[in-house]
Amino acid sequence: MNGERVIAVYLAETPLSLEQAADAIAGEQSTGTFTAVPGETAELKEKHAAVVEFIEPLEEVDAPSLPGARVSAQHDGKYRRGRIAVSFPMHNFGPSIPNLLSAVAGNLYEMREMSGLRLIDLELPEAFAARYPGPKFGIEGTRRLTGAYDRPVLGTIVKPSIGLRPDELSVLVEKLARAGLDFIKDDELNANPPFAPLTQKVKAVMAAVDKAADATGRKLMYAFNITGDIGEMRRNHDLVVAAGGTAVMVSILSIGLTGLAELNRYSEVPIHGHRNQWGMLTRSPMLGIEFTAWQKLCRLAGADHLHVNGLNSKFYESNESVTRSIRACMAPLLGGYETMPVISSMQWAGTAPATYEAAGTLDVMHLAGGGILAHPDGPAAGFESMKLGWEAAVQGIPLEQYAERHSALKRAIEKYGGRE
Amino acid sequence: MNGERVIAVYLAETPLSLEQAADAIAGEQSTGTFTAVPGETAELKEKHAAVVEFIEPLEEVDAPSLPGARVSAQHDGKYRRGRIAVSFPMHNFGPSIPNLLSAVAGNLYEMREMSGLRLIDLELPEAFAARYPGPKFGIEGTRRLTGAYDRPVLGTIVKPSIGLRPDELSVLVEKLARAGLDFIKDDELNANPPFAPLTQKVKAVMAAVDKAADATGRKLMYAFNITGDIGEMRRNHDLVVAAGGTAVMVSILSIGLTGLAELNRYSEVPIHGHRNQWGMLTRSPMLGIEFTAWQKLCRLAGADHLHVNGLNSKFYESNESVTRSIRACMAPLLGGYETMPVISSMQWAGTAPATYEAAGTLDVMHLAGGGILAHPDGPAAGFESMKLGWEAAVQGIPLEQYAERHSALKRAIEKYGGRE
Repeated sequence: MNGERVIAVYLAETPLSLEQAADAIAGEQSTGTFTAVPGETAELKEKHAAVVEFIEPLEEVDAPSLPGARVSAQHDGKYRRGRIAVSFPMHNFGPSIPNLLSAVAGNLYEMREMSGLRLIDLELPEAFAARYPGPKFGIEGTRRLTGAYDRPVLGTIVKPSIGLRPDELSVLVEKLARAGLDFIKDDELNANPPFAPLTQKVKAVMAAVDKAADATGRKLMYAFNITGDIGEMRRNHDLVVAAGGTAVMVSILSIGLTGLAELNRYSEVPIHGHRNQWGMLTRSPMLGIEFTAWQKLCRLAGADHLHVNGLNSKFYESNESVTRSIRACMAPLLGGYETMPVISSMQWAGTAPATYEAAGTLDVMHLAGGGILAHPDGPAAGFESMKLGWEAAVQGIPLEQYAERHSALKRAIEKYGGRE
Repeated sequence: MNGERVIAVYLAETPLSLEQAADAIAGEQSTGTFTAVPGETAELKEKHAAVVEFIEPLEEVDAPSLPGARVSAQHDGKYRRGRIAVSFPMHNFGPSIPNLLSAVAGNLYEMREMSGLRLIDLELPEAFAARYPGPKFGIEGTRRLTGAYDRPVLGTIVKPSIGLRPDELSVLVEKLARAGLDFIKDDELNANPPFAPLTQKVKAVMAAVDKAADATGRKLMYAFNITGDIGEMRRNHDLVVAAGGTAVMVSILSIGLTGLAELNRYSEVPIHGHRNQWGMLTRSPMLGIEFTAWQKLCRLAGADHLHVNGLNSKFYESNESVTRSIRACMAPLLGGYETMPVISSMQWAGTAPATYEAAGTLDVMHLAGGGILAHPDGPAAGFESMKLGWEAAVQGIPLEQYAERHSALKRAIEKYGGRE
């Protein structure tokens, strides 16, 4: 580990010079305190200090993005933005995700030297690969378990989000499984609620999945939301596996990256990683974390699938940002850590072509809620329309044209086409 | 649990009316999807829907705080702010912190209906108390273990933050323990690093603590930073306890609230909760979480001590906000959940009077890094000056006047007094 370093790249905004801001970041997160203390030798600093690797100036602005920056009497009224890369010696914290976070994020967001700070990328050394084995299934394992090849893994989210009794859910799941869907996930609002405990849900859902599989020859993958406290998650996982389930789902920000890494230690099925609450960490443009950085930690911690929002979604995020997220998930990390990006929110057959263009691959999971469940001819036609949307995309045929020969797609366009 | 509800209070900003925004929040986090789906019956909505409890209009602004809000052609150019309270039926998720988070935060931060959203408070029903036992030591337990009564628990943070070898740390700790300090914590940057593994650190520190205790008759509380992955944390905790240690420390945002709750299941010593990374969730005024809400979850999950920043700190936060945080920690939660607020950053004897005024109590932990370690007459005088600062505060004697009779305080004022 000697000599190995983590590189953290920040988007920074400061009333100071970018050089002063960079030094403040490096000092705060390694050897600094507000007044020099005994024992802070030159040798210690040499061995443990964070180092500013590069500074790339960007634009200047007239107002601070965040409150509380300290401004001197001589301040010229400008706030300077730039990209700042800082490297940290690995021996300061070792290959530990939680301690990495304290080092590269830590108190930085609160510094008065900054009027904006966002962690935009992380470069991690090999030592992390030895500590965190990462996804056990990834793209190939998910295709093997679903039997879905040569197209995205297509599926839906249980709707209504909340409130179906296990017997009602069972009917819905069997219908969708018989319709040929590859995948269904619980809603993130619905894990192990008192009104429909997971024990009952797993039993009801797996009976439906198995019954449909006997008829169709393919076993639908149902991602049971097992989000919970640490011990509960283990019990939930074991319950799903014992019933023959082939996936579990967690809200990563609810259980933490340590919760995800712990689940990945014993998981026997793919882990479907939901990113609800993510907006809190990213919607303020000069604060928080960029998905590019965060997804690396999710993959290290073992997310086989990772939500990335969708193009033209109901959320605030731009299509450019969604595209960056999909591409980020596909870039190899430490030689592997394959995850399947999960595209969802306001998706339907018609979002396939743009999604294919954005992703540049079929190795994604494409989920439609209403886009499948509320298809005018029922969910089987909804699923069919999604497949047709991707066929058209891959063959480069305009959707309207492809729909002339395919009624499920035509009917989907009639219903959802005017939406945007 | 029937009939019990969680109430979440938000500070919201929207280009819509506050009523429309409130309905969007309630819908997104309970029964909504972008298009009506079969099974969304009136009965289901009645039983599971989130309900808008009140709307309190605040000011209007001319520009959105966050990007990506959708604005109609008829928009009047105004963004309305208000407080919105929404209640959620407990049977939707049960008394589970991780699933509570998915419900009250979830996708809300990403909604295009909002140009700002911040969770400012949570009201939790009794069911949470049955599930989460909370701090095992709290204020009384911490006083018992440190023997510090009738004043704040006073201590310091190991500095330099990073880089001391175990033998160097041992010398420092023994010196500070002999000086009479109640408490020392590891820096948050320093947990179980390869350059000084926790096994060696615990051995070296506890030898120093025990040696000093033999001489002084009081055992210093050293909070070892055991932040790590789930299994590692347990091993680290057991190591500390086996060596006779009396506290462990974790970076709560590194291990997650589930990690904290898990640690609290087996912990045998107080848990010192550090909030590094917190700025990420709170510095953008119209995004994230207010400390008032978050500290409740930390206390439920078991934080015996909880960092709240300090008055006149080196960070961006206003004194009003720090005062609110201290007071929030002191408000009873579900009839208990006592935690000791930890005040730190740029603290010294001179910050005692204002801190006492803000807290209105002595039941706090007051930590000074340089303010003790770099005192011109050494750390014993630094510690003495802190006690004197609090004596002056409690007696209502101006600091300068009290310092006339007390040289340790006088010397502290000479060194640190001009700092602000």
